[in-house]
Amino acid sequence: MTRRRRTLADLGETALIRRIARRAGVPPKRTWPLGIGDDAAILRTRRGEELVLSSDVQVEGVHFRFGRETPRTIGRRALVVNLSDLAAMGAEPVGALLSLCVPATLPVATFDGFIDGFLTEARLHGCPLVGGNLSRAKDSSLTVTVVGRCPRGRALRRSGLRVGDSLYVTGVLGAAALARLRADRHGSRLTRVPRPRLEAGRALAKMGGVRACIDLSDGLASDLARLLAGTRLGAEIDPGALPAPRGFRRACRELGLDPATLLAGGGEDYELLFALASHHPDAGIEGLAERLGVRVSRIGEIVDRVGIRGLPPAGPAHHF
Amino acid sequence: MTRRRRTLADLGETALIRRIARRAGVPPKRTWPLGIGDDAAILRTRRGEELVLSSDVQVEGVHFRFGRETPRTIGRRALVVNLSDLAAMGAEPVGALLSLCVPATLPVATFDGFIDGFLTEARLHGCPLVGGNLSRAKDSSLTVTVVGRCPRGRALRRSGLRVGDSLYVTGVLGAAALARLRADRHGSRLTRVPRPRLEAGRALAKMGGVRACIDLSDGLASDLARLLAGTRLGAEIDPGALPAPRGFRRACRELGLDPATLLAGGGEDYELLFALASHHPDAGIEGLAERLGVRVSRIGEIVDRVGIRGLPPAGPAHHF
Repeated sequence: MTRRRRTLADLGETALIRRIARRAGVPPKRTWPLGIGDDAAILRTRRGEELVLSSDVQVEGVHFRFGRETPRTIGRRALVVNLSDLAAMGAEPVGALLSLCVPATLPVATFDGFIDGFLTEARLHGCPLVGGNLSRAKDSSLTVTVVGRCPRGRALRRSGLRVGDSLYVTGVLGAAALARLRADRHGSRLTRVPRPRLEAGRALAKMGGVRACIDLSDGLASDLARLLAGTRLGAEIDPGALPAPRGFRRACRELGLDPATLLAGGGEDYELLFALASHHPDAGIEGLAERLGVRVSRIGEIVDRVGIRGLPPAGPAHHF
Repeated sequence: MTRRRRTLADLGETALIRRIARRAGVPPKRTWPLGIGDDAAILRTRRGEELVLSSDVQVEGVHFRFGRETPRTIGRRALVVNLSDLAAMGAEPVGALLSLCVPATLPVATFDGFIDGFLTEARLHGCPLVGGNLSRAKDSSLTVTVVGRCPRGRALRRSGLRVGDSLYVTGVLGAAALARLRADRHGSRLTRVPRPRLEAGRALAKMGGVRACIDLSDGLASDLARLLAGTRLGAEIDPGALPAPRGFRRACRELGLDPATLLAGGGEDYELLFALASHHPDAGIEGLAERLGVRVSRIGEIVDRVGIRGLPPAGPAHHF
């Protein structure tokens, strides 16, 4: 006799919200006088700071597949891609809301995996779960809204580029795309979760003089185009300067992939792309790496001719 | 020759986000130094106030159907159900984020309908759209996160009930359920959008002494049970005191429905249910109605015996 796995329909909404609240615990009372379980969460703020708000979603069949990722990995990613947006603003995480859509037939173990993965990253980055909602849907999706804070006027923005600015990226590119393609090729589990560059972002905001910053979600080519959109500026990229992980070219060769395309268009790097005035006192790579606590590469500069040179053209937009 | 309707795939993500930003306009700079188009929105806050955050979702096939509601109505509802949560906290709206999941085959006119409906309510209630995200998905869904504000320590909560407290509801019950059942029966369009009780909620918060408050989304029986959950208290309801819209009993008779069931369990009323100490100086109905600017009915009281008496039992939970 096989026992049917318990699904969400066996528990009901109230029990499921309690299940989340019990796992999440109580957020710091001084900042969050009221958390999960009421109509809304209450956030207490301080003078001299600004709050930063962002939301992003992970959708079944678009951003994840149950065969490829574990529920835990999916839950972790759902928060991390949002924390990456806070990193790109130079903000410190304060808390998060999770809007979870799931079919009634979802096994409770999958639900718990989502929550536990989410809470693992929440604890790691000091971003307590303080609210959200739960709804039925045909496909699963996890929409997260994060709140961060910055000293007033210090947040990093996307605008502000000028001719001659140097462009930098943190870490390496292409690793996430390679891992995803490998998992697809071999039918193996994808367990890689990006690491949000929160410390680097805060160090950039503190340093001052950053002309623009964005996190790389869709790939360098697409996200650089996003940074340039609405300006009359372009970028010259040095393809040889793009930082690749160790053994990247050989791995690409084995899979029959073009390394340049993967570096520029693979997506899901969640590294920071930022611009500094070339005469900025901190424009030196070694000093920057030490300040940001992460590898930094100068990959090119801003020019007064529209368009991006030195990168393969961005593929069709990721989302549509 | 028929012209194919333009779908989202014809425009792409960047154009769609610009389309939203253009329609939304620029939010007040003093409160929102940075809005749509960056990694996150920036919210400036004042001392002596607390911010209130809530999120809720409308999912195709669960909360709406394209045959039954227009895209505009769906967009309006998506914001209004969130504003209702702010009302239940006694908070004033500050701004909103919209996380929109849509299939690539969605007609652009439907997308515009969502946005225009959302923005209609945003303007009506002074709650500018300041950010969000856009993703592909099989079914459409609109997840909204709202930010509100309250003077520090004045927000209305769900906890705090005591024996002897009087229970009140604003407005009338059952109207939304009746409209929905009528539309289903006649295959007609459902154009009714609830009115969030923001003024009444703020007046309650200002008045002080409110022991508990919740907005009625799933129906009086379910939401009252939610208010009582985790306490050792119960409620005695006077079924004859439940406020029904004009002609309600006759309309129910014509459709073969039980009025009591619809009043207590129809759901989607988005009225406020609140508790006041019976000796509270403002416990009089006429004074309350004047203060809150809306009809108020005393429907029962809190007792020391667990359970709800005087209402038909709540049906199965709405969401699972």
